[in-house]
Formats: sequence, C-alpha cells, structure tokens
Amino acid sequence: MGKIIRKLPEYIEGYGKVVPYGTIITKKEKAKLSDVVTKKNSKVISLEEAIINSGLIDGMTVSFHHHLRNGDYIMELVFKIINKLGIKDLTLSASSISKTHDCLLEYIKDGTITKIYTSGFRSALANEIQYNFNLKAPVIFMTHGGRARAIEDGSISIDVSFVAASCCDKLGNMNGKYGKSAFGAIGYPMVDVKYAKKTIAITDNLVPIMDKDISIPKDYIDSVVVVESIGNPQLIATGATRISRNPMDLLIAKKAANVLIASGYIKENYSFQAGSGVISLSVCKFIREYMKKNSITGEFASGGITANLVDLFEAGLFRKLYDVQTFGSDAISSLNRNENHIEMSADEYANPANKECIVNKLDVMILSATEIDVNFNINSVTGSDGRMIGALGGAPDTAAGAKLTIVVAPSMRKRFPIVVDNVKTICTPGENIDILVTERGICVNPRRTDLISILKRNNIVTTSIVTLKNDIYKLTGVPNILKTGDNIVGIIEYRDGSVLDIIYDL
Amino acid sequence: MGKIIRKLPEYIEGYGKVVPYGTIITKKEKAKLSDVVTKKNSKVISLEEAIINSGLIDGMTVSFHHHLRNGDYIMELVFKIINKLGIKDLTLSASSISKTHDCLLEYIKDGTITKIYTSGFRSALANEIQYNFNLKAPVIFMTHGGRARAIEDGSISIDVSFVAASCCDKLGNMNGKYGKSAFGAIGYPMVDVKYAKKTIAITDNLVPIMDKDISIPKDYIDSVVVVESIGNPQLIATGATRISRNPMDLLIAKKAANVLIASGYIKENYSFQAGSGVISLSVCKFIREYMKKNSITGEFASGGITANLVDLFEAGLFRKLYDVQTFGSDAISSLNRNENHIEMSADEYANPANKECIVNKLDVMILSATEIDVNFNINSVTGSDGRMIGALGGAPDTAAGAKLTIVVAPSMRKRFPIVVDNVKTICTPGENIDILVTERGICVNPRRTDLISILKRNNIVTTSIVTLKNDIYKLTGVPNILKTGDNIVGIIEYRDGSVLDIIYDL
Repeated sequence: MGKIIRKLPEYIEGYGKVVPYGTIITKKEKAKLSDVVTKKNSKVISLEEAIINSGLIDGMTVSFHHHLRNGDYIMELVFKIINKLGIKDLTLSASSISKTHDCLLEYIKDGTITKIYTSGFRSALANEIQYNFNLKAPVIFMTHGGRARAIEDGSISIDVSFVAASCCDKLGNMNGKYGKSAFGAIGYPMVDVKYAKKTIAITDNLVPIMDKDISIPKDYIDSVVVVESIGNPQLIATGATRISRNPMDLLIAKKAANVLIASGYIKENYSFQAGSGVISLSVCKFIREYMKKNSITGEFASGGITANLVDLFEAGLFRKLYDVQTFGSDAISSLNRNENHIEMSADEYANPANKECIVNKLDVMILSATEIDVNFNINSVTGSDGRMIGALGGAPDTAAGAKLTIVVAPSMRKRFPIVVDNVKTICTPGENIDILVTERGICVNPRRTDLISILKRNNIVTTSIVTLKNDIYKLTGVPNILKTGDNIVGIIEYRDGSVLDIIYDL
Repeated sequence: MGKIIRKLPEYIEGYGKVVPYGTIITKKEKAKLSDVVTKKNSKVISLEEAIINSGLIDGMTVSFHHHLRNGDYIMELVFKIINKLGIKDLTLSASSISKTHDCLLEYIKDGTITKIYTSGFRSALANEIQYNFNLKAPVIFMTHGGRARAIEDGSISIDVSFVAASCCDKLGNMNGKYGKSAFGAIGYPMVDVKYAKKTIAITDNLVPIMDKDISIPKDYIDSVVVVESIGNPQLIATGATRISRNPMDLLIAKKAANVLIASGYIKENYSFQAGSGVISLSVCKFIREYMKKNSITGEFASGGITANLVDLFEAGLFRKLYDVQTFGSDAISSLNRNENHIEMSADEYANPANKECIVNKLDVMILSATEIDVNFNINSVTGSDGRMIGALGGAPDTAAGAKLTIVVAPSMRKRFPIVVDNVKTICTPGENIDILVTERGICVNPRRTDLISILKRNNIVTTSIVTLKNDIYKLTGVPNILKTGDNIVGIIEYRDGSVLDIIYDL
C-alpha cells in the first residue's frame, strides 16, 4: 500500500467522492510489503495469533476461496476465532458459498458478518437473508471474472485473505495439488493474495521447503497456520461432474452436439468449455466421437476441469487444459502429472479487464440454466419463486467471451416451464446467448442470422423461442408469477461491475 | 452499447450508486454498432452534418487527441460548429490541451464547455479557470495511461470522438503517417474510438480506399469530414525535441548518463525512455557513445519518439521503437520506412489496467520536473506559485513501471530553487522516483538501498536530498510559500484513478 501524501477533501463538487492516492493497493506495492514481512521470525503461528497479527478489526473485509466447495472447513474455523475475539461488522468476500456454510448462520445473526460478496448463495443462509434481512447491504453476486476485476480495480478492498492450502511450507509457498485434502488448482485466491493487505495460509499438510510446484509463492503470505483438516475433498464434486444416465438428459446432450457440429465450430484448433450440470457435461461424450472420427484436435478446453475433459485431453483430442478449479481426484491427478494441464488464476480465466483472458479465446461454451426467457436471458441464481438457490459462476464471463454459447436445458422440470416469458432473475444477459437446445426444440437468438442459415443448410430444424415457450405453456399452463417482497436483499452484478438485476425478500 | 433490460433503482442502501447493465460500452459491442453503420450510405459529409448525425446534445462528452499539439486546428473547427448549433454544457476530454487552444476561451466563458479532462493545461485557458472559475467541476488532470484506463473502465464515457487524420479514405480507414499534415503515430485516439458512441474522422487528405498502413480501421468510424487543413505539423515538436547546447544542461545530462552506466542498467537487451525536455533528451547523446563502445544493443526505446531515438535505432543500438506519439519529420519518416518502428495505442503504452503495457517493461526512464521535493515527489503541472503551466503526460505511468526512474533537473532556475521542501503540486509520487541528478549533486531515494551501494562501489558521489536542498536554499534563500485561494479548480488524478493532489484558484 502506498501512503497518503496529501490531505484531501472527501468529496469535490462536480467530481464526486475522492479516493486518495495510496489507498488503492497495487501488486507491485503488495510485493514490497511482503518482502519486509519475510525478514521477520517464523510465520508459523496459531490461527488466533495470525488473526490478531493481521490487524483485523471491526468493519474490515475478509476473503475466502471455494475450491473445497461443499467440503470446506476453513470458513467455520476462522469465524469461530473471529467470534471469540469479538470482532464484528465484517464484509465477507468469498469466491463462492456452499450449503456447508450454513454453519455461518449464527455469525450473520449476531452481526459478525454484515456484508457479503459471493458467486453463489443458498440454503439456510439464503433463507435467513430473504426472511430476516439484517445485513448492512444486499448480498452482492459476482461472476468469477467480475470478482477478479473488482479486487484488481479496488471495488473490493480485502483486508485479510484466508487461503486453504493442501500443501504448504513454513514460508507460505503453497499449492492445492498434494496432501490428504488435495483439491487441485487454486485459481481463485491467486487474485486475492496479490491485493489483500494481509494473507493467512491455512494448511493440514506442512511440508519441507518447496522449490517447485508452487502455485502461490511465499511473498504473498504473512502467516502460516497448521490445522487438523482444511476440509473433505470427497465433497468437492458432489453431483456436478458425472455423465448423466437419464435418457432425457442424453437426448438433449446429443441434440446439442449435433447443433455444435452443424454450426461448424468443432474444427481443428477450436477451444471448448462446458459448465457444470449433467447435460452440459454429457455433451463431451458425443463430441468425443465426432472429433475422433474426423481427426480433429482442439487447442484447449478450459474452466472447471472434470474427469470428462481429462479423458478427452489424454485421448489427444485437446492440446491443453486450462484449469481454474479442479473437480474430483481423476482431474487432480491429471493436473499433477500432465504438463499441459495448466493451472490458471481467476484473472487469467475470466477477468473482463484482462483482454488476454481465456474466456475471450473460447470458441464454444455450453451452459446450463434454471430458467431462460424469450429474450434468451438466463437465470442461474434464483428459482422462479425468487428464492436464492444457485450461483453465477463463470457463466456470464464465458457467454460474453465465447464465439458460440449454447444453453442446454430440459423444457420443463416437475411441470414447471424452464422457458418462460421473463426469467425471475437475469444472471446472464440474453444478448450473449446464441442457441438454446431443449428436448422439445432448438432456438437460435435472432441476432445470429449467420447461425440460423448455417443450421438450416445442415438440416437442423429450429423454432422461434416464443413458439417453443407457447408449446411448453400448453403442457404446463402459464406459470403464476410469484410475488416477492419490496426489500432488496440481493444484487446481481454483471462482470463489468454494472447491475443486471435485483433479488427481493420473501 | 447493450440495452438496459431491467428497471433498477438509482441508489441502493449499503451498495451505493447503481450503474445499470448496458450502460458500460464494451469494445465488442461498439464493433457491432459500427457494423450497422457501415451498411448505410456514404460516410463523407460536412462537419455540421456529422455533428448533427452523431446526436450530440447538451450535457454530452466530446473527445480529441493532441498529436498535432500546438499546431492543432481541429478543436477550434469543431467548437465553432458546436457553438453555431447552440449545443452547451459539454465535457471536453482531450488527451492534452496546448497554448494554441486559447481559441477555446470564449466557449468556456459562454458555457459551451463546462467540464474538462486533460493531461496538460496552460496559458489563457488556465488563467480563466484560476481567476474566473465557472466550470461545473475542477479541471481533471489525467496521465496518458490513466486516460486509457478511465475510458476503458467507463470512468469517462465519450459520446462523440473527433479524430484528426492526415490520411483517410471515404470509409474511415486512417493513419497520421502520410499527407501534408502528417504527424506520425496516432496512439491516443486508438482508445477513444473503441469506446466512443460515435466517432467522426476529420481529414485534409482524402485518399483512395486504403488496404494497408491502417492505424484506425473504418469499423470504428461513423462519419468522415474533409476540411482544408487539420493543422500545422511544424508546430508539433516546438522546443521539446532538440539536444541542448547549454553547457549546464549538458553537464547534468552527462552526470545522468554516468549514473545510469554505474547503476548497471545499461546492458544488453535493456529498454529505455526519455521524457520531453532538453536535458532528458540530451542524455541519449552520452548513452549512445557508451552503448557503441561496449557493443550493447537495447531491446527497445519507447514513448514519444524523437529524431534522437531514431538515430540510436538506425545505428542498430535498439532493436525496436514503440511509438505512441511522434515528434518531428525525421521521426515520422522513420515510422513510415522502418518495420520495427512500431505504432502503439495509449493502452498498449501505459494503461495501468493492462499488465502487458510497455511502461511495465521499461528498465530506464529519464524524467524532467518543474519542482522536486525532499520526498522525491515531482511537480510537472504547476509553477511553485500554483499556476497551471504544464502537463502530466506519461511521466507518472513510466515512473511507476520502469525499474529505474531518474529525474534530471537544474538545481535552480532564475534564482528559484527546483529542489524544495514541498512541491506545490504532486504529479508523480516520490515513491516511484529512484534518483535525482542536478548539476550540484546526485540524490538517491533512501528506499533504493541497492542503488546507494552500487553507485558508491562505482565511485559516484551521492548526497542526501535534504542536504542538497539546504545547499540550494543557501544560494536562493528559503522560497516564500505563495498563498493560493481556497476554491478547488484542478484535480491531479493518479493513473489508477485515485487523487494525488489539488490545484486552487489564484
């Protein structure tokens, strides 16, 4: 951090709020800071000491990563100590929040946590916020790329970052690749540590000084804390990464693969990403066959890396895997053994201010959705009832960057239509979506006249999304629009920091 | 521009001002917009038609570039028509403003221009602002890199950009390399055109359709206006680019070259930039000899490219020249004939949000200063009396990026000390300055203990900057601190958008 060198007014008429020089931390300055720290004595101390030494006080911002997803133990460990120390009114900036974090409920109720930035939000915490809102601000949803941007441009200023590491030495060199709690790539906190004023590494596997395989280097780490367990890596991939056996899912995946092939995007050197969701992942299976038969090698596959993508990569169908977050032990061991399975930061992955980011180089992106409307807007955060149940993830980032973005979804779930007049909550703007594939019909965004004609030439029948929606409504009936409250409890930020939509209380 | 798809509140408690999705223009979206435009009829129309077609109305923002510097005719031409059309209350975002723009005085007085962003400000306009302030906001000074950042992140939202081109075809393909008013690189508006809602090219040299040497392509251009003359290129380089013959200047330049050599930075593959100012440019002369004698070839020289740098380049002493702004006909003809004399945008040059920018790759930067204080802070915008007389330019960008930043300055000018206790206006923070070289002594920033010892080992005598300042004060007397008014008329923004200092009325 620089130092403030001039006394400045807080506000200047016609100009606005004054951000004084020295208050925006740059990477360069942070590196200088840590040089000083490393000259001190041992960094290995208890969690309580580390928090006290970090200078954490009321009103500050703490950050966490979600690579351990539903198996994460770190947030609970940390907030227990914070609570013991009586520190209140904290802003929690997590790369995402899972069901396992229901354990934080008491810290929201008692005012320990008063503001939240996250990609996902759900379960008991969501209920508490939507029924008994007592934060100081609505929950702010950010995409993975948007979060990297916000940390870099100072929109989020992290005071203390807590980083779970499955492998860490006493200086703070770390990775997530080895150890009993190995989770793979550690792409999200790579951004946090560069800008946080203080960073605390937490590990259950203190190893001799590392000289290779360092994902985050010691220079960014102020303290190292050893605990019994950072989490349960068995719970990382729950549900999200298997290939479906449901015939309806497979039908949609097969149709999507046919559309992809007909569109001409599956060609030598192309790049590919599939979001989480069984249909999305099942598309890989059908593309695999086509690529093999036609001797097509893709340049890279990217995103959250699953066993399916490793399978394609090791079959020589992609030259590289770019991995921000690893799902499951097969993918973790690939990261450790394959030189071209490359770990990347959230910045390198999806930061809209980083022109060279991977999402900007994507040809094909497959997305899931909980709802999609006749303007192709996607909802992935709330149910149609407005209840917070999901996450933005990297979907809006990839949709903006990829040349072809396809949404795969069933036309209805339990008699609720998935294609609707208006999604309850806009999470990815429709102008970035090119095609919707359902079991009942394929719809192309009217903006993409080029795709409409190429699919026609290749005998893929498409229909207007309004027609499809009407057909579905005939079966499900017109859905009731459920009334939510008037109080704002959540904000959907687009990756550039603008506001896409708002979530209300229940 | 995207479209706003949800009605949103303007302000949310705990969150702040809401920037709706669709109001931040991205490059991708802008490209789409222009596609539509190019399908229309001829773009070649009169300036008045072009302004009317652009939709310019009261309260909007217009932008200009300063590649023609003191020889620019465009701003006057444009504001005459704007005035005729009765459009008022405009924000002027210029990459810089010169003495020749005193002709805009009437448009400030009559409320046509009510807010100004610029790198430099001086002469009659500065007097008007400091004695009879009637803008809606203080003049906001931005570095060349800071301006690129602000346009990209939406801090400045340009409605209509006016781009002078010395060579342009009827579709809007253009460069500044050829024609009677050739000025060389056109690096500054390369950023504007990508984000401006409308862009008007103005040329005095309409050429047949261009298929090469296109610096800004047609896709970004909405209209093309042909005028008799866009400016007088003879006035581009006035004063700033000759090698000095003043013995004092040469003495300081020689000392600076010795310091550079002793510091070990002048080595194979190093990179170099020298700011405007005769001493700074004279350093090249002495480095040339050393590089030749020791067979050192630098990787690149960058910035504003002058005949001196072309001379070093053509002597094979640098492999590349990166050029954002070209000074003088010798440098212009080099840009046209030498493949490795490369034009770059202000973004590629110095945008702090662009990690790959050239200033981040600089080894050595030589800067001038109107004042420097005992904390190494530099003033380059005002006199010690607080009067606006200069510019930020790219100095704060290069100082932040370069590994070694040296300030060259005489210890006094006309009995006024240049080294002082406190500069009147902080323009480049002292923490980014490494060495000060004056004829009376050489001072190293105490932060750079490495440089202090290496210079000592190489028999370069240094002194503390406080001692030097005291020695100078013995000769000049302690300068009176001139009292300025209490009303804020100017703001010095650091390249990251934070505020470094403030300028008051007189």
